[in-house]
Amino acid sequence: MPTFTPPIKDQQFILHDVLKIADSDIPGYDELDRDFTSAVLEEAGKIAANVLQPLNAVGDRQGCRLENGVVRTPEGFKDAWTQMADGGWMGLDADTRYGGQGMPHLLNTATGELFSAANMAFQMYVGLSHGAASALYAHGSDQQKETYLPPIYEGRWTGTMNLTEPQCGTDLGLIRTKAEPQEDGSYRITGQKIWISAGEHDMADNIVHLVLAKIPGGPDGIKGISLFVVPKFLVNEDGSLGDRNGVSCGGLEEKMGIHGNATCVMNYDGATGWLVGEAHKGMRAMFTMMNEARLSVALQGYTQGEVAYQNALGFARDRLQGRDVTGAQAPEKAADPIIVHPDVRRNLMDQKSIVEGGRALVYWGAEMIDRSQRMGDAEAEAMISLLIPVMKGFLTDKGFETTVLAQQTLGGSGFTREWGLEQFVRDARIAMIYEGTNGIQSLDLVGRKLPSNGGKTIMAFFEMVKGFVKENEVDAALKEGFLDPLKAASKDLQSAAMYFMQEGVKNPLNALSGSYDFMHLFGHVCLGLMWAKMAKAAQESLDAGAGDEEFYRTKIATGRYYMARQLPATAMHLARITSGAETVMALDAANF
Amino acid sequence: MPTFTPPIKDQQFILHDVLKIADSDIPGYDELDRDFTSAVLEEAGKIAANVLQPLNAVGDRQGCRLENGVVRTPEGFKDAWTQMADGGWMGLDADTRYGGQGMPHLLNTATGELFSAANMAFQMYVGLSHGAASALYAHGSDQQKETYLPPIYEGRWTGTMNLTEPQCGTDLGLIRTKAEPQEDGSYRITGQKIWISAGEHDMADNIVHLVLAKIPGGPDGIKGISLFVVPKFLVNEDGSLGDRNGVSCGGLEEKMGIHGNATCVMNYDGATGWLVGEAHKGMRAMFTMMNEARLSVALQGYTQGEVAYQNALGFARDRLQGRDVTGAQAPEKAADPIIVHPDVRRNLMDQKSIVEGGRALVYWGAEMIDRSQRMGDAEAEAMISLLIPVMKGFLTDKGFETTVLAQQTLGGSGFTREWGLEQFVRDARIAMIYEGTNGIQSLDLVGRKLPSNGGKTIMAFFEMVKGFVKENEVDAALKEGFLDPLKAASKDLQSAAMYFMQEGVKNPLNALSGSYDFMHLFGHVCLGLMWAKMAKAAQESLDAGAGDEEFYRTKIATGRYYMARQLPATAMHLARITSGAETVMALDAANF
Repeated sequence: MPTFTPPIKDQQFILHDVLKIADSDIPGYDELDRDFTSAVLEEAGKIAANVLQPLNAVGDRQGCRLENGVVRTPEGFKDAWTQMADGGWMGLDADTRYGGQGMPHLLNTATGELFSAANMAFQMYVGLSHGAASALYAHGSDQQKETYLPPIYEGRWTGTMNLTEPQCGTDLGLIRTKAEPQEDGSYRITGQKIWISAGEHDMADNIVHLVLAKIPGGPDGIKGISLFVVPKFLVNEDGSLGDRNGVSCGGLEEKMGIHGNATCVMNYDGATGWLVGEAHKGMRAMFTMMNEARLSVALQGYTQGEVAYQNALGFARDRLQGRDVTGAQAPEKAADPIIVHPDVRRNLMDQKSIVEGGRALVYWGAEMIDRSQRMGDAEAEAMISLLIPVMKGFLTDKGFETTVLAQQTLGGSGFTREWGLEQFVRDARIAMIYEGTNGIQSLDLVGRKLPSNGGKTIMAFFEMVKGFVKENEVDAALKEGFLDPLKAASKDLQSAAMYFMQEGVKNPLNALSGSYDFMHLFGHVCLGLMWAKMAKAAQESLDAGAGDEEFYRTKIATGRYYMARQLPATAMHLARITSGAETVMALDAANF
Repeated sequence: MPTFTPPIKDQQFILHDVLKIADSDIPGYDELDRDFTSAVLEEAGKIAANVLQPLNAVGDRQGCRLENGVVRTPEGFKDAWTQMADGGWMGLDADTRYGGQGMPHLLNTATGELFSAANMAFQMYVGLSHGAASALYAHGSDQQKETYLPPIYEGRWTGTMNLTEPQCGTDLGLIRTKAEPQEDGSYRITGQKIWISAGEHDMADNIVHLVLAKIPGGPDGIKGISLFVVPKFLVNEDGSLGDRNGVSCGGLEEKMGIHGNATCVMNYDGATGWLVGEAHKGMRAMFTMMNEARLSVALQGYTQGEVAYQNALGFARDRLQGRDVTGAQAPEKAADPIIVHPDVRRNLMDQKSIVEGGRALVYWGAEMIDRSQRMGDAEAEAMISLLIPVMKGFLTDKGFETTVLAQQTLGGSGFTREWGLEQFVRDARIAMIYEGTNGIQSLDLVGRKLPSNGGKTIMAFFEMVKGFVKENEVDAALKEGFLDPLKAASKDLQSAAMYFMQEGVKNPLNALSGSYDFMHLFGHVCLGLMWAKMAKAAQESLDAGAGDEEFYRTKIATGRYYMARQLPATAMHLARITSGAETVMALDAANF
């Protein structure tokens, strides 16, 4: 059975050595000193390792069951939920006015990493509630906020997002669920939603569904979509629960993974709902919480990689097989541990460098969200909006790849259920699909984000990289191992952007055919930048005599691996991109 | 539920347009004209599509059950087995002296493609029997061959290979199973073997286990391993079944995939066995059938990609979502089929070009095995031995990637069990692990195969590529789209080999740290060569007015995609390789 050790030292390194959050000008960050974040992460880590992680395999094996309209979650989930709620984890970064803890989103991201690594299917219930609450917080009326937010932050109620229907996932303009206005100001919601995570379960007293639907007579397509709040139980004025609403779970999806999370068909049969925000502006309401939601999926990508890596590493240290080619390392034993073998190292270093780079990138993203939300910083908002599809698409692809690599470290044991690595592969796979498939992320990146603001934000990104390189080039070791490869990779990214500008204008297919490679090219540059920053921070700590030299040296060595072995992928992606649309679009659909 | 359509036209293209087998000098190939192979493939295709494919999901869901020592295979498997046996498919390429059909291995590979694509878990029972029979055929005594081969080729009995033990998979020198000589010339076999595919089941009257074990007092390590035949039921002189032997199934492994195949713990409790070949030469006996066995796993890689691609393609043609950016293609419908979108094309073209390239490579491999076995051609034997780790490692990695891409084509549907794509992902995953993990393949390639014959065989490979390029450069279209990129990729491979020669001599870690990338670099060059050959053959057919122009044009267009979009990976692998061992080996094991 797999284990999980909270990587708190690594988390603290990003928070304090790299991002130096306690010195930040973001309101609320001044509280986040080393001791405080350490205490919070330790507490979260205990729940993650002792409560959630042991339930991960249980959830996978038992799955959820639908019995007479009620979804039974796996054994132990309800107790774990209560412990999470009692610990105050449900509203850690929520407004104190509604019962939240008022902490920055970054801290919620760091604790979320622990919960997600320990039990992704469980943490999804938490994450969905968080997302629904964020949408209500941003767009709901005061009354809606007062009604729904405190019980969600207390963990008494949970939330869901209802977008997908059988005929539409990506193309939400095709939504058929209708919302008919009633005389009392409410709406009658009728239609079917599918793939609704946490749509129904037995862990909370009420479930607050946020539902996209069309008000008859409104504009066609996505311009006619509105957002509604539809509670499972209607809520009386005093906050107590009233009648059961006309919404029910019509079935559970059988899936490849995340079995502990209930993926529901939700039937709305004239359910009572209330408009959230303005009519026909539902898509806009969804988009304001998109960055947060997609960042949390990016996090799922590397966290599954992280727990998989930990278990691969443990196996590689224990398993005796073959001898070190440079001489026996454990002559007293029948064979050496397989970690001595270069190809096992290559595999582990790929995993390690992706996981740690991914963490740095996601924390930086969370910091930008805080900067945007807490300071109204438009540049931070533009930058995180540009980078979100990269983070979601690249890190979930790479996170999945990491689970596959970790599984491979175990050889045949990796394929057995007993060792548990295969569950990480199956669970991580969904992150490439939901919250907008990674193909859609790449279209969002190239079609919307890249050209937005007349390209100002991508130029700002290049300037930031250039500035960082210039500022640090005096350090010869940093220059050779990190800045030179970063510069080359960033140049590849610029060439690709230039290609899109020149050739995409002539023929949009030239840009769209390269969108996926562009997303990966961009992701590598981001991770290259993160590793350069981590190396700099580690060197500074070494220079300052911070102690724990092995830890900082290991950071630098891992970063050098990334720069030497992962970053060369940028040239390949550039070559694919600049080959253009011709070979991609050559076939008639009939000739495939 | 997924479907499978036998790709007979594509198979015939490789056999007759590319390999031109009917004109070959290999004994037995003269029978293989277009009509004959078409008839055989049609028959095999019927069984694959009508009998095996419908059982694929059944096998996945039901799995195998161990009841009182007896393994129950999924419903329908036994009937399917009987149909396969009655059709003569079990001994298609086996010696007619023992009841086989005497056909070339290439034809068995082509029919095996259909069975494997339709139901990999089922076909494994067939494949294991084939492997065991091949080992007996090569190393058994006449009496052993007469006893065991006819019932296996008739499908009345099956076979297994018993290598792995709890403490050793890769490092077989650690084997503990012992074989004590008895006075009657037999041996008492005692020990435990794990992960024995098809180790016990209810489809055949007897199971012929081939078991690696050590005769007490023999040499240490792998030099002291011998091969034994241990039937489940002892065989009387007249061929009838006698007493049950002391071998039994002690448990079934719970696995990520291939649930229809029984993965057994096999306990040998003083079982009676007989030496196959010479004492202490068991590893050599295994190696002679390794090429065939590993080629059949390479085939599993691309066949799972193939059936996954077929279903992804069907979905992409049917699913309506979004509009073609260049103008609506289905204005009468609510949206266009998603195959219009460039990123969906990119995804499908990656799948298609890998699957069709993989087929060409595996058929070429099977032809080399025939040339080696039927003509005693030492150069063919050397070449296939060099290429086998590339075929196994590269095609199973790429085949798995293809199933993941295909799953992605379906978006959320790809994650559900209902659509069945996720089973292909889970089943394909094992091919990267068994028959020697892909890491081990890369070590075999770089550590053993590359330097063997003083590098003569790899030089012959380069000469072959060079010769093909030179011979065809007059064709300007072939040169630009195929030969130039092939030349560049082959140059990258040469540079990598040169790096290993120069730097690997100084420090073997420099070669071993790049082995995995070398395997992939080599694989891309092989597929590039295959696509250049396919393009040439397609152009020749077009020039000859062979009809079906769309088919041949599509081959050329798919090949051009591969050369433009996949082959640039070679430069990335070269860059990883030439970065050397330093970053790979930088960390102490304790610092990971």
